Amino acid sequence: MKDQAAKKIVCFGEVIMRLSPEGHKLVQQTGQMDYFFGGTELNVGVSLAVLGENVQQVSAVSDDFIGEAAVQFINKFGIQTGHVQRNQHPNGLYFLEVGADVRPSRISYNRLNAAFANIDANAIAWKEILKDADFFHWTGITPAISENAYQALKKGLEVANELGVTITADPAYRSNLWKYGREGRSVLKELVQLSHIFIGGVNEINEILGTDFGYSDDDFSEASKTLIEQCASIKKVFDKVRTSLNASWQKIYGRAWNGESLITTSEFEITHIVDRIGTGDAFAAGVIYGLGHFDDEKTLQFGNAACVLKHSIYGDANLSGKQDILDLIGGNTGGRIKR
Amino acid sequence: MKDQAAKKIVCFGEVIMRLSPEGHKLVQQTGQMDYFFGGTELNVGVSLAVLGENVQQVSAVSDDFIGEAAVQFINKFGIQTGHVQRNQHPNGLYFLEVGADVRPSRISYNRLNAAFANIDANAIAWKEILKDADFFHWTGITPAISENAYQALKKGLEVANELGVTITADPAYRSNLWKYGREGRSVLKELVQLSHIFIGGVNEINEILGTDFGYSDDDFSEASKTLIEQCASIKKVFDKVRTSLNASWQKIYGRAWNGESLITTSEFEITHIVDRIGTGDAFAAGVIYGLGHFDDEKTLQFGNAACVLKHSIYGDANLSGKQDILDLIGGNTGGRIKR
Amino acid sequence: MKDQAAKKIVCFGEVIMRLSPEGHKLVQQTGQMDYFFGGTELNVGVSLAVLGENVQQVSAVSDDFIGEAAVQFINKFGIQTGHVQRNQHPNGLYFLEVGADVRPSRISYNRLNAAFANIDANAIAWKEILKDADFFHWTGITPAISENAYQALKKGLEVANELGVTITADPAYRSNLWKYGREGRSVLKELVQLSHIFIGGVNEINEILGTDFGYSDDDFSEASKTLIEQCASIKKVFDKVRTSLNASWQKIYGRAWNGESLITTSEFEITHIVDRIGTGDAFAAGVIYGLGHFDDEKTLQFGNAACVLKHSIYGDANLSGKQDILDLIGGNTGGRIKR
Amino acid sequence: MKDQAAKKIVCFGEVIMRLSPEGHKLVQQTGQMDYFFGGTELNVGVSLAVLGENVQQVSAVSDDFIGEAAVQFINKFGIQTGHVQRNQHPNGLYFLEVGADVRPSRISYNRLNAAFANIDANAIAWKEILKDADFFHWTGITPAISENAYQALKKGLEVANELGVTITADPAYRSNLWKYGREGRSVLKELVQLSHIFIGGVNEINEILGTDFGYSDDDFSEASKTLIEQCASIKKVFDKVRTSLNASWQKIYGRAWNGESLITTSEFEITHIVDRIGTGDAFAAGVIYGLGHFDDEKTLQFGNAACVLKHSIYGDANLSGKQDILDLIGGNTGGRIKR
Amino acid sequence: MKDQAAKKIVCFGEVIMRLSPEGHKLVQQTGQMDYFFGGTELNVGVSLAVLGENVQQVSAVSDDFIGEAAVQFINKFGIQTGHVQRNQHPNGLYFLEVGADVRPSRISYNRLNAAFANIDANAIAWKEILKDADFFHWTGITPAISENAYQALKKGLEVANELGVTITADPAYRSNLWKYGREGRSVLKELVQLSHIFIGGVNEINEILGTDFGYSDDDFSEASKTLIEQCASIKKVFDKVRTSLNASWQKIYGRAWNGESLITTSEFEITHIVDRIGTGDAFAAGVIYGLGHFDDEKTLQFGNAACVLKHSIYGDANLSGKQDILDLIGGNTGGRIKR
Amino acid sequence: MKDQAAKKIVCFGEVIMRLSPEGHKLVQQTGQMDYFFGGTELNVGVSLAVLGENVQQVSAVSDDFIGEAAVQFINKFGIQTGHVQRNQHPNGLYFLEVGADVRPSRISYNRLNAAFANIDANAIAWKEILKDADFFHWTGITPAISENAYQALKKGLEVANELGVTITADPAYRSNLWKYGREGRSVLKELVQLSHIFIGGVNEINEILGTDFGYSDDDFSEASKTLIEQCASIKKVFDKVRTSLNASWQKIYGRAWNGESLITTSEFEITHIVDRIGTGDAFAAGVIYGLGHFDDEKTLQFGNAACVLKHSIYGDANLSGKQDILDLIGGNTGGRIKR
Repeated sequence: MKDQAAKKIVCFGEVIMRLSPEGHKLVQQTGQMDYFFGGTELNVGVSLAVLGENVQQVSAVSDDFIGEAAVQFINKFGIQTGHVQRNQHPNGLYFLEVGADVRPSRISYNRLNAAFANIDANAIAWKEILKDADFFHWTGITPAISENAYQALKKGLEVANELGVTITADPAYRSNLWKYGREGRSVLKELVQLSHIFIGGVNEINEILGTDFGYSDDDFSEASKTLIEQCASIKKVFDKVRTSLNASWQKIYGRAWNGESLITTSEFEITHIVDRIGTGDAFAAGVIYGLGHFDDEKTLQFGNAACVLKHSIYGDANLSGKQDILDLIGGNTGGRIKR
Repeated sequence: MKDQAAKKIVCFGEVIMRLSPEGHKLVQQTGQMDYFFGGTELNVGVSLAVLGENVQQVSAVSDDFIGEAAVQFINKFGIQTGHVQRNQHPNGLYFLEVGADVRPSRISYNRLNAAFANIDANAIAWKEILKDADFFHWTGITPAISENAYQALKKGLEVANELGVTITADPAYRSNLWKYGREGRSVLKELVQLSHIFIGGVNEINEILGTDFGYSDDDFSEASKTLIEQCASIKKVFDKVRTSLNASWQKIYGRAWNGESLITTSEFEITHIVDRIGTGDAFAAGVIYGLGHFDDEKTLQFGNAACVLKHSIYGDANLSGKQDILDLIGGNTGGRIKR
Repeated sequence: MKDQAAKKIVCFGEVIMRLSPEGHKLVQQTGQMDYFFGGTELNVGVSLAVLGENVQQVSAVSDDFIGEAAVQFINKFGIQTGHVQRNQHPNGLYFLEVGADVRPSRISYNRLNAAFANIDANAIAWKEILKDADFFHWTGITPAISENAYQALKKGLEVANELGVTITADPAYRSNLWKYGREGRSVLKELVQLSHIFIGGVNEINEILGTDFGYSDDDFSEASKTLIEQCASIKKVFDKVRTSLNASWQKIYGRAWNGESLITTSEFEITHIVDRIGTGDAFAAGVIYGLGHFDDEKTLQFGNAACVLKHSIYGDANLSGKQDILDLIGGNTGGRIKR
Repeated sequence: MKDQAAKKIVCFGEVIMRLSPEGHKLVQQTGQMDYFFGGTELNVGVSLAVLGENVQQVSAVSDDFIGEAAVQFINKFGIQTGHVQRNQHPNGLYFLEVGADVRPSRISYNRLNAAFANIDANAIAWKEILKDADFFHWTGITPAISENAYQALKKGLEVANELGVTITADPAYRSNLWKYGREGRSVLKELVQLSHIFIGGVNEINEILGTDFGYSDDDFSEASKTLIEQCASIKKVFDKVRTSLNASWQKIYGRAWNGESLITTSEFEITHIVDRIGTGDAFAAGVIYGLGHFDDEKTLQFGNAACVLKHSIYGDANLSGKQDILDLIGGNTGGRIKR
Repeated sequence: MKDQAAKKIVCFGEVIMRLSPEGHKLVQQTGQMDYFFGGTELNVGVSLAVLGENVQQVSAVSDDFIGEAAVQFINKFGIQTGHVQRNQHPNGLYFLEVGADVRPSRISYNRLNAAFANIDANAIAWKEILKDADFFHWTGITPAISENAYQALKKGLEVANELGVTITADPAYRSNLWKYGREGRSVLKELVQLSHIFIGGVNEINEILGTDFGYSDDDFSEASKTLIEQCASIKKVFDKVRTSLNASWQKIYGRAWNGESLITTSEFEITHIVDRIGTGDAFAAGVIYGLGHFDDEKTLQFGNAACVLKHSIYGDANLSGKQDILDLIGGNTGGRIKR
Repeated sequence: MKDQAAKKIVCFGEVIMRLSPEGHKLVQQTGQMDYFFGGTELNVGVSLAVLGENVQQVSAVSDDFIGEAAVQFINKFGIQTGHVQRNQHPNGLYFLEVGADVRPSRISYNRLNAAFANIDANAIAWKEILKDADFFHWTGITPAISENAYQALKKGLEVANELGVTITADPAYRSNLWKYGREGRSVLKELVQLSHIFIGGVNEINEILGTDFGYSDDDFSEASKTLIEQCASIKKVFDKVRTSLNASWQKIYGRAWNGESLITTSEFEITHIVDRIGTGDAFAAGVIYGLGHFDDEKTLQFGNAACVLKHSIYGDANLSGKQDILDLIGGNTGGRIKR
């Protein structure tokens, strides 16, 4: 049941099937794959729904039994699917081979001619969708997929601005997308200039602004200030810093520039990674949840702890409850069995 | 080890991944799928390779770990893969929900923008490929996928004709393909007019010629004669006739017009279908094997028995050995355990 | 998306976990079980939701990760779960060993001290739940589980009568339940007297009325008339007649007394049963859908065809779409692959 | 808990691991196999233990973690394993590809240099083992494996005769075994001449006696009489007659010559075979159980019904309870769910 | 085969089914669960049986196919099951979601109205069961489940005392049980006063005595002395000390107070936990084995090494052999493959 | 497609089936095993084929469906199988229980009477096979299996010497093989004296020469020099040094004596081992690849990095591509996802 204080959050992006061999097997080594649905914006939505928020997914899926399964997957978490289009194109999907130790995971995408890439931008009732929303979340994947997706997103951002909805942006630049003709970096800058919360770090800022900031906390502060100068709508920047021993063992801490000062969290050691996918989305979801309920410092801690916990959860989305995340912030890392 | 008398057969077509939930589950009911590779022409090739023939697959797959797995799948049967192209497009795939009893199987394709659809028609060394071939096999799927595939096939057929290679055609018309602009029926007729053995029945003849023959054995003879009149390169027509009680229980017999007379086989009852996919390909492979080794009557029996056996074999391709098929022709249907 | 003409249907009953070894294995033979959720009233609700109706499930599940999974299962189909209680009792479950041929399936229940048995009857907001409902569905399982469940159901039926909601009853008597003290047959009679549509046959009528009618169609008509005499709220009786060759091969036809005359359908042969569980619920759902959209004859045909199709679908609930059922009524039993 | 009237039965033979791909897949089609343990004499023992008898298995397994698993498998059913030797040879095993419809199952054995083939014949304490036994069961597999196995069996039969234990023989001749030097048919005759109950039919009699009887019931009676003339220790002959439509659909009835007259049972149709392996062992176990508790006619019915039921049970051994078998004798073939 | 010097050990407690999704998946993320049987006292028994001891399990299971599977599970290890009752209540079970890294495992129980909770305390033939026993083992779970279980345990302890059987107690207090009315701590104290070996540490002593000792080795010695003062039957206290980096990486060492002095072991680092469940039971089993065969120091080392090894073994029970444990005591931690 | 500069490498050895329970389960704990094919020399061949070399496997497999699957497995990687014999003996196989943390893996072999042990040494066309080969690879397993295998290997080595093929030897001594009568150490010395590259370290040298060198890098240099003195054909020695924290966490570095000086690599930490089997074969394959393409230092680095990567790859063979290995040499250990 939704909390009284639950926020309404709109996520716009592809609902993509993930297919991966069991454990650490390669596709060539087996004849069975696990599958379910994900997508960076949906992952954020799922995590927020599990935390008790009221989430609406806007997307397009295939009009066949795969698209039907996709919608059922979203429904499962109590996310609204009334604005998920269906069309005659096959649903997007990706194959994942899960790495370990020094071996990286590998991903192969099949999405650029898929249902979401062919979304009907004009058929999205943005005003109705956004009219009572608290947050609108987008990522750099969506405008990279197709002109349709870009147009739809831009329109959504404009309507959200009109309606006073807070826009959270995770504008990662993925160079292997952006095949449809537009220049990725400038598109991202244009869209960031329509947004309010920047979820990303020095890499993303450098990509968008064409700058060359370093990676220290001070550099991050400087980069954030420069970003806010050039993209005045942005008020705060939330980032996490990852140090990788290998694919199975990493460290994470969070840092943020809230327009006035640098905030950082303590660093968590993640010694046994179960699933690396979607950990950034877990951070984003934690931050968005925090923005609706906490101050900046706790927001950053909540995002960071959510991100850390996601590494121990199979799948694309963080399924941790609010108390699990708060427990981790409180220092409970011992993993004692809950009976 | 290849037989002395082994024939060389070239198959041209898509190598497509098949993904299906275990048993009779729906995609929405589970989180695991079985997968492997198929494709109507590859299925024919696999079956012929298992029968001891020397098979070459011409195709294009994705240049990623899925395409690598596809090539390994073909290699496994000792089929030559030296003329399988790799490109940057995702590999074709299809999802299958396996029906039972009165419930039909359902298939959803993702192939029209895939690696094979983007095959480089000019890069296929048809002369080298076909120079010592006995048979070249194609189906109506290939020219339905894309202009590239159509052009490549047409060129192959022309070279095969030049080199005196026997061309076997399985020109089924699939109305849900043919999205790239050409009119399917006339393309198929054009390509049949370059072929020598027609593997198909009244439906296929009616589609291609625009005729309206009935389904009796006499009608089939008439239809075959008319086909040969209009497509003079065709010398023989091989067909199987299926009667379906439901998705699990069917009956099959074979019939052929060899240019002079009608040949028929006895009818086999298939009371427990394991996998309905690829049974037509099993028939085609059996016929092609027969053409290289048997007279017309035994060729038809061999094709029909191969088709019947395929219904009891999981997967897309018939993996029956020659002796298994001959045993069935000999009336051994009792299924006694072979120790 | 829900149809304009979609009906609102309220289902009240246990959401129970089903656990069963794969295929035809026994529990003692393996170390893995498939699981999902069912329950006779939920099965009806799922089927109606798949058909496009607006369904509300009223129930109680455990307040742990099993109950959470149960709610997600219901959500998946777009069924409303706002009135599913959670309590500290473990969730109900049953183990199923799937029979075949002459070997019967076996079921072992663990439900009589479970969350649903401990439902808080006073906490159900029946007036709110039923205020715009078209149908309220119940079965003989619910009042057999506990006094709480009985009280909750009775109150629901009373409110539904006040609000003019049509009540459909599937009042099967299960002698191995009814452990909490009430006499099952008289309770069922009491509740049938609050209902309008009787989904059941001679067995159920004999149980409830203490009569001894035979099993012919004429006997069924007589039994139905007698039922309506003694339970005046009942307007129509819908039944299906099953003939079992064995656990894998059965025949089914439908018959109904609509208050005026006997209606029957043709008989369908089901030669390869995939899952026998929930076939009665599929019939009930088909009848309820028909009542909202069709005349009596088509309603019976729709229920019967839905029941037949369910035998080929894995799981507890019929997942067939409307068109699949109509195709079967139209005689399309051949199971031709849908591409 | 063992019945008061439980019989003690000693089974002597190999405990062999069965490995088979899931469902109807071929070994080449998958990367997973199901496994457990069987062996024709153990199958008989398991079935008798499930029926409540007191069973002792005499055998030899490998002294490694496979042999340990084998012993645990036997223990599971409450069968005594105190006389199962362990040695340094690998455990016997076989691979099974499960056929369907017209496709036969295929088996490949790895047993002739295994632990059981190397059993230490002198180390078996036959007098202690057999001292309070009611039955000693052997089959034609055991003496076919190795000289050691033959010597051990012969000694056991001699001791059993001394101690007045009833010996049941299932002396099937398997031509693909018998690699160690002895002539199978004459060995089997020698051993049958030490036995009392012959579980086999015309084929086995013809093999052993070198006769050429036909397959009618009258032929069977004649063959049985001749067998008893030549092997005077034999008192009764129990046989089942199988008619195979294909690997999935067969018919079975039982017949016996009890020294005085022919007894037959009605024929059962088995339309959906789950597992064909061990159905003969199920018959043998049913007959042995009957010999200890019933008259000849009921013994034959019990053996035949046990055999029929086994076709619907996964694995090598019949796991049906006594009541299940009696229900089937009573004509209950409808497979109604047992709740 | 049992050793000459094998001890007879009686374990009394629930035989509970464990159900858990594969790997680190949540119940909501999959449709398959692994299952088998455990229970804290059974885990001790299994481990002791694997070590060669003669074990008798006293319990009650459901009289259905789940209870049958439970008995088979116990039989498998050669544990005596002649005093396992069967009754009409469903068998106890628990669901486990396996944590990793900073995410804790979660358990949900369904046992308080199950077969064991309804054990018939008067029907247990304690005198016969215990007459030649060396040890009787109990834990704090059993008296927490129901009045019946408490009464049965108390009677067993009294008889054991009469017969001079050494009683080992693992009296952990689980606050989420104890729903049937008795006050847990005082019951545990009453039962400890009937026992001889205390397997537990400062937490357990504080719970039972209401004291507040700290966690240092000195504190442990003091606590042990106080325990022995208040519960004079107790002669020795065995404890293990766990330090948790997270759910996957922990450290363990053992300490004991043998009535005279403190004994400690070296600490083992467990860097990759496979299964955390039952590690305390592995310690207990190792200690009990040691008590029957070793001096106090080696007993503690054996218990501690057994506990460490259990973390690398899937399932509830330690299946390590004696040599495996001795190897670890000897410092062989390198995990070199045993061929 | 094979590189221009691809080397031809001949591998001679058993193709053995590996069977292992999923994850870290024991054989006794489950009823399913994963399987595929391996064998130390085949593992080297697979790795070299994946790296683009032209590989020929010489072996003997069973003439049944297991042997067929073995050949398909080899074919899959594009390895030539024209000189794989088939005979009537069962195929070799081994069972593996995968250890973790302080628990070692356990292996049980079934190979000494298998197809490869019975290879027809006279039927191998060594001259034809080796005529254009660059390398011939053998290991100490092959001559340990049977007289036939020894004779075949010796003949191959002699022919290779005649034809100037470089022979790489991995002459590990396995004391639990060598059951057929020859003395292992002297046979290995004889065969090393026919070889050119020694892939092994101090242990192997001590075994073969009967020396007692220590394990420091200096000791290794001395041992290598002594080896080359006594076995003059040997030109270089390649070794890897493993330090094991436990079965899941180890460290590796490489060292070589190239006839003139000691070369060493940096040490890699492997914190999460996925599969320990075949890591030595990965080293050997890396070295052989290096010998054909790199200088000694890079050869050693390539072998060592290949070995490190193999620990993260499921199965017997290293499937890493050339770039993956070079990336690791370049210090890229962070395991960043490759999209």
